[in-house]
Amino acid sequence: MKKGKVYLIGAGPGEAGLITVRGVRCLQASDVIIYDHLVSGEILRHAKDTARLIYAGKEGGKHTLSQEEINQLVVEEAERGQVVARLKGGDPFIFGRGGEEAQVLARAGIPFEVIPGVTSAVAVPAYAGIPLTHRGYTSSVAFVTGQQDPTGDESIDWEALSRVGTLVFLMGVKNLPHIVANLIKHGKDAATPAALIRWGTTADQETISCSLKDMVKKAEEMRFSPPAILIVGHVVGLREDLNWFEKKPLFGKGIVITRPEAQAHEFAALLREEGARVIPFPVIKVVPPEDLHDLDRAIGGLEKYQWLVFTSANGVDFFFARLRERKRDIRDLKGIRICALGPATRARIERLGIRVDLVPEMFISEGIVAAFAYPLVGNYN
Amino acid sequence: MKKGKVYLIGAGPGEAGLITVRGVRCLQASDVIIYDHLVSGEILRHAKDTARLIYAGKEGGKHTLSQEEINQLVVEEAERGQVVARLKGGDPFIFGRGGEEAQVLARAGIPFEVIPGVTSAVAVPAYAGIPLTHRGYTSSVAFVTGQQDPTGDESIDWEALSRVGTLVFLMGVKNLPHIVANLIKHGKDAATPAALIRWGTTADQETISCSLKDMVKKAEEMRFSPPAILIVGHVVGLREDLNWFEKKPLFGKGIVITRPEAQAHEFAALLREEGARVIPFPVIKVVPPEDLHDLDRAIGGLEKYQWLVFTSANGVDFFFARLRERKRDIRDLKGIRICALGPATRARIERLGIRVDLVPEMFISEGIVAAFAYPLVGNYN
Repeated sequence: MKKGKVYLIGAGPGEAGLITVRGVRCLQASDVIIYDHLVSGEILRHAKDTARLIYAGKEGGKHTLSQEEINQLVVEEAERGQVVARLKGGDPFIFGRGGEEAQVLARAGIPFEVIPGVTSAVAVPAYAGIPLTHRGYTSSVAFVTGQQDPTGDESIDWEALSRVGTLVFLMGVKNLPHIVANLIKHGKDAATPAALIRWGTTADQETISCSLKDMVKKAEEMRFSPPAILIVGHVVGLREDLNWFEKKPLFGKGIVITRPEAQAHEFAALLREEGARVIPFPVIKVVPPEDLHDLDRAIGGLEKYQWLVFTSANGVDFFFARLRERKRDIRDLKGIRICALGPATRARIERLGIRVDLVPEMFISEGIVAAFAYPLVGNYN
Repeated sequence: MKKGKVYLIGAGPGEAGLITVRGVRCLQASDVIIYDHLVSGEILRHAKDTARLIYAGKEGGKHTLSQEEINQLVVEEAERGQVVARLKGGDPFIFGRGGEEAQVLARAGIPFEVIPGVTSAVAVPAYAGIPLTHRGYTSSVAFVTGQQDPTGDESIDWEALSRVGTLVFLMGVKNLPHIVANLIKHGKDAATPAALIRWGTTADQETISCSLKDMVKKAEEMRFSPPAILIVGHVVGLREDLNWFEKKPLFGKGIVITRPEAQAHEFAALLREEGARVIPFPVIKVVPPEDLHDLDRAIGGLEKYQWLVFTSANGVDFFFARLRERKRDIRDLKGIRICALGPATRARIERLGIRVDLVPEMFISEGIVAAFAYPLVGNYN
């Protein structure tokens, strides 16, 4: 039997455009996608239609699937010949437990690839205007998991960490008091600038910027909850000049889009580009006609028509799809002139290699009537 | 006058597919692209045709443009209304001097955005099978620039660094003896596993894996030169199980492709996927015919023909482009049957919404003759 394969993919820090090109290609090639909490729905849209999407969870302490169940699921799917994408937030090998999952695959003899991602540890500070390294500031930066056990202290060498120029704690909200207390206790200057960034790189990004010693109080006041990243170091001061993202014109604004889902994408992307949080709320759904009889009769007797009038891009898509289903094609439109209502409809027709003969000046149905009645009202080609 | 804008883009670690989707979109939108050494030519292919590409250099000590000249160039181009992509290897804010360039832009009042990239510090170890963090191994990792001044020692706190679980030195080849000596002198166990990775994530990747104390000698024996990344820590031992990339079937093999550049892309991608180093060496170039007279006459009198025979996808593209230039379109092919030589040619025609009437069984010109002579030899639709 065909053996499958597994892609361990980093989805990036939150903003859907920060997944890699290779990550998208591997998602498109996958039969099964097992994804973690915090992976954006926008990213899951890259999956092929037939792919199965499985939510693995891991929200705070609550796990939808345990790590052992995830491991087992990935192995099972690959062993029955599936291409599996294991999609994780950030990078799989920076506090992502990707190494453990890779070990399980190696032991089971299943081929796997690692697709690194943009780690939140770097991108979230960048979106808050904080470069982790900067000439004259620091020549080293350390990443630390904030999820260590506050009673045990494991292998964290606080004294050594306190002496590193820039510190980044991932998943640091829950243990914030513990982290701050330990750093100060072990020699970090309590006045060192610090930043706590919540939902970094997304339209919901929020940043607290203050001294290390004030951070616990501020975070409580602002009721900060996960996911958030803590940065400690003088580079935080650069934010004053470099805070580009939170200054975007629509940052902090939520905008509802009522267009049908399939058509809202481009407009949503434009709004997100300006920093808006976009809420898709389609109030229209485009469906095929219940009765195809009239359309099929028109297609069957195409040669009787002088004009074909398209009033929307949806109409263009549907007409040409039905034309092919009826075993006819574009060549059968010979001799028929074509009218398009509006530039988007026109573009959709031209993409098929067909010239448009008429676009009425008014982009409403009345414009078509006017253009036919008084030929000077439209743009004839 | 319209003010421009600047994208500070991380190109990723070397492998062209590890740039982000957003990075590609910003490159496509840019009028000027100022790129550093080590940015792959594959990535520059995303630029629009009219974009100006400017090489900023920075190879080891040699700079094609000084940092000041780069800063000035970026500001000048943006001020005359251009959209500028400043494209850097890895991530712009991890030892990429992106912070300095952003400061210059902020001071000049030029809008800018940071597009984080996959840093080499994470991806290169991942491609060598080394997760930087791993349960039971370490809960912290530090990135250090290897380019600090070996005489001055700046702000490097060797004693503190020696105590961090995993250490990654970027650009660490030139100062390798200095780095290793300092780590051991300040308490790092000389037997700690270490790896030196050259040209990581590309088909030329080479890895040395040994104890910290043996690394200088080994690197000299193997004549390692930049670019390379040094990793020190017990996680290096995981490579034994997790080394997936260097085990790809075509890894270490160079393959020359002689197809025309525009057509070689897909095949090259397949080979690269298996780990091969692909060398494009086109020995054929597809050009338009010198004399279009015969083609134009045929297009002018299309209605006289019963069959249209396409022998290649190039032929399909060229014919339909010329058809449009001559102010005709697909509808004018009404009544003409269409024959395609081979499935690629057929697919290209069908993409235009046209059904193909005949594909000969033999994918050579003789097959067409046979199909017309003995109608059963071809696949009629």
